[in-house]
Amino acid sequence: FSDPAVRARRERHAAMMDSLKDIYMAKIKPLETQFAFPSFYSSEMSPGDFDTAPLVVLIGQYSVGKTSFIRYLLERDFPGQRVSVEPSTDKFHAITAGRVERTIPGNAAAVDAARPFTGLTKFGTSFLNRFEVAELPSPILDAISFIDTPGILSGEKNRIERGYDVEAVIEWFASRADRILVLFDAHKLDISDELKRVLEALKGHDDKIRIILNKADSIDPQKMLRVYGALMWSLGKVVRSPEVLRVYIGSFWDQPLAEAGASNADLFNAEKADLLADLRSLPRNAAVRRVNELVKRARLVKVHALLCSHLRDQMPYFYGHKEKQARLLARLPLEFSKVQRANGLAVGDFPKPARFSAGATAHDLASFPKLSRRLVEAMDGALARDIPALLATMQEDAS
Amino acid sequence: FSDPAVRARRERHAAMMDSLKDIYMAKIKPLETQFAFPSFYSSEMSPGDFDTAPLVVLIGQYSVGKTSFIRYLLERDFPGQRVSVEPSTDKFHAITAGRVERTIPGNAAAVDAARPFTGLTKFGTSFLNRFEVAELPSPILDAISFIDTPGILSGEKNRIERGYDVEAVIEWFASRADRILVLFDAHKLDISDELKRVLEALKGHDDKIRIILNKADSIDPQKMLRVYGALMWSLGKVVRSPEVLRVYIGSFWDQPLAEAGASNADLFNAEKADLLADLRSLPRNAAVRRVNELVKRARLVKVHALLCSHLRDQMPYFYGHKEKQARLLARLPLEFSKVQRANGLAVGDFPKPARFSAGATAHDLASFPKLSRRLVEAMDGALARDIPALLATMQEDAS
Ligand SMILES: Nc1ncnc2c1ncn2[C@@H]1O[C@H](COP(=O)(O)OP(=O)(O)OP(=O)(O)O)[C@@H](O)[C@H]1O
Ligand SMILES: Nc1ncnc2c1ncn2[C@@H]1O[C@H](COP(=O)(O)OP(=O)(O)OP(=O)(O)O)[C@@H](O)[C@H]1O
Ligand SMILES: [Mg+2]
Ligand SMILES: [Mg+2]
Repeated sequence: FSDPAVRARRERHAAMMDSLKDIYMAKIKPLETQFAFPSFYSSEMSPGDFDTAPLVVLIGQYSVGKTSFIRYLLERDFPGQRVSVEPSTDKFHAITAGRVERTIPGNAAAVDAARPFTGLTKFGTSFLNRFEVAELPSPILDAISFIDTPGILSGEKNRIERGYDVEAVIEWFASRADRILVLFDAHKLDISDELKRVLEALKGHDDKIRIILNKADSIDPQKMLRVYGALMWSLGKVVRSPEVLRVYIGSFWDQPLAEAGASNADLFNAEKADLLADLRSLPRNAAVRRVNELVKRARLVKVHALLCSHLRDQMPYFYGHKEKQARLLARLPLEFSKVQRANGLAVGDFPKPARFSAGATAHDLASFPKLSRRLVEAMDGALARDIPALLATMQEDAS
Repeated sequence: FSDPAVRARRERHAAMMDSLKDIYMAKIKPLETQFAFPSFYSSEMSPGDFDTAPLVVLIGQYSVGKTSFIRYLLERDFPGQRVSVEPSTDKFHAITAGRVERTIPGNAAAVDAARPFTGLTKFGTSFLNRFEVAELPSPILDAISFIDTPGILSGEKNRIERGYDVEAVIEWFASRADRILVLFDAHKLDISDELKRVLEALKGHDDKIRIILNKADSIDPQKMLRVYGALMWSLGKVVRSPEVLRVYIGSFWDQPLAEAGASNADLFNAEKADLLADLRSLPRNAAVRRVNELVKRARLVKVHALLCSHLRDQMPYFYGHKEKQARLLARLPLEFSKVQRANGLAVGDFPKPARFSAGATAHDLASFPKLSRRLVEAMDGALARDIPALLATMQEDAS
């Protein structure tokens, strides 16, 4: 990861993310603000959402080796790190590059617009108290940031004792992640109901998930096959997708292989190499993914603005706002299709009527401004020219 | 398999099956005959149903190595055997012990009450023309009989071109089998819709199914893991049971391992040894299974006889048979529960009303004889004394 070519690419990546941020700030955000987009959908993007390195989230039951694996990749300890056979990591740790080693408490990190964590405020103080950012120098952190998570516990402990919605928090990180690593312990395979729920919450992110069957060197090859088979048997049923998830089998930490699995050494080394190669490929893919997500968001912003202004135009001037708005919201599918046909929009770009309607209850539709053609054209320009140009640069960089 | 201890056990097994046959003939069959049991449920048992060695059925797509595996176990060719990279086995072959090598055509085999194939007549001549019994001397055949099946083909070919219901035939063999081996080719893994349907038809026999991932030496260890993982991923969804099916991985024929999988030689040898040990355990388990099945059948025979005689007693003496019978059949659940309570029977021993009703349409209930207390007592005696005594002997033999 400290290879100069990788560093150079990382710098180009940062420059492209800067351009992307500029496009968002200049051409998309103004339209979002006018029509209160964040209160309908997801919060507005902060500079931190663009500056961030690709994000790798590690999840799994306790003691499967999540923290040890991060430690191995960092080639050093990180502040706040705790490794033990007991449930040990009790906070969510964001591990990112920094010139000096320091930790930033969750509450402070979440108000810093330069970081990609402002969205976490919605999970409340009880969560933010259990969130911490660790900054430290390590070659891999120039390319990737990590989220270490507390082990998923079985039974009621998981949700209630923790005082925040663990699944929702994991889903939040997962939807922003470039890679979701789900670790299992080959020596003690166990797919609890809680873990199943988390995996189900990750539906839709299947393409980002990779499985790690860790500590596979602690059992003999035949046993290892049985465990791996049982894992696949269960995962296929939980994940349901016909596409088989990639599983990396081995021992992912800085210790030599155990005796029991020694005869699989070649296999484990090949698997480790494959996993590292996958992580190395992330920065490039991450940039393309960010662009795609911004394009999706921009399309929704446009639809949203057209919808709001279409509904606004039907609101009465003086009184009867409430009743009229209720009538309009009751026939949203009809209004949606008018807007869709009038503007030649794709049906798939429209939000769920229920979502729109829920957001609209907090607003008087009449209070939205008239749609500014200029702003719409600026955004169309971003979608039609600026972003494709950026993507072309990326493709060049990739080849 | 030619070990003297195994031979001795095989002879004791045969003696026990003889006793079981005698119990059936003397104490169960008479009651079956009186109340036309075979026309309601399954055909009457012939001597061949008791004399048979444990049965192992091999299924899988074409060219996965079913025939080659049997050949390997026999340590010789069998008459009718065809091995090739093309779909080659085009008949169902029953491979059983015989002093001299010979084949018996399906039509002849199915009318021979000394063989366990009389039930196959229901699949008609188009199937029997595609069925053949091979008799030959081979040590393993003293302990086990095999059914080699034609590879399951994809698309319409499977059912239509063959002119008989392949799935139903496989299900017939599977329900009589002691072990169902489902083979896959690691080099060309493919779970066609036809195969999925066959696996679904095997539901209820999960405990008898073992999977063989064959030709696993033809790919390198990492690839082998991916294939195995993909197999488990899909199987878990098709078979659905939470219990993971046992998969034997290796190369199951008489050739040395290929270069690609050489590093897995220990694993493959261990797997082969496990599979052979499993086959060796079959004769003992098979005897217990036959007894259990006969007990289940006897319970149903008793319930059936009591039901028929209960309904018969309500039939009018002279006319109105048809109308009365229709009324009785329309309220079977009520009549069932009367019989159940009056005789202290288990609800689970009763047939589905629809099944009983379908069988009854071919009979005038009034024509059934009065229930003979003597016959019922004989059968109760078999269930309460003769069969438990036989089981006790088996347990002794096992310890
Ligand atoms: N690859 C490995 N092989 C064998 N043991 C390992 C491996 N990785 C970690 N361990 C051991 O497993 C235990 C748990 O490790 P670690 O704390 O990293 O797991 P974790 O998943 O972060 O747990 P938690 O969810 O509680 O934070 C420790 O004792 C550690 O030394
Ligand atoms: N363990 C093995 N490793 C490699 N090749 C094998 C193995 N077993 C069989 N083969 C080869 O695979 C091909 C198919 O074998 P075989 O005819 O036994 O399969 P089958 O499942 O019986 O096919 P069919 O369903 O058409 O009867 C043959 O060329 C055979 O030599
Ligand atoms: Mg940890
Ligand atoms: Mg064959």
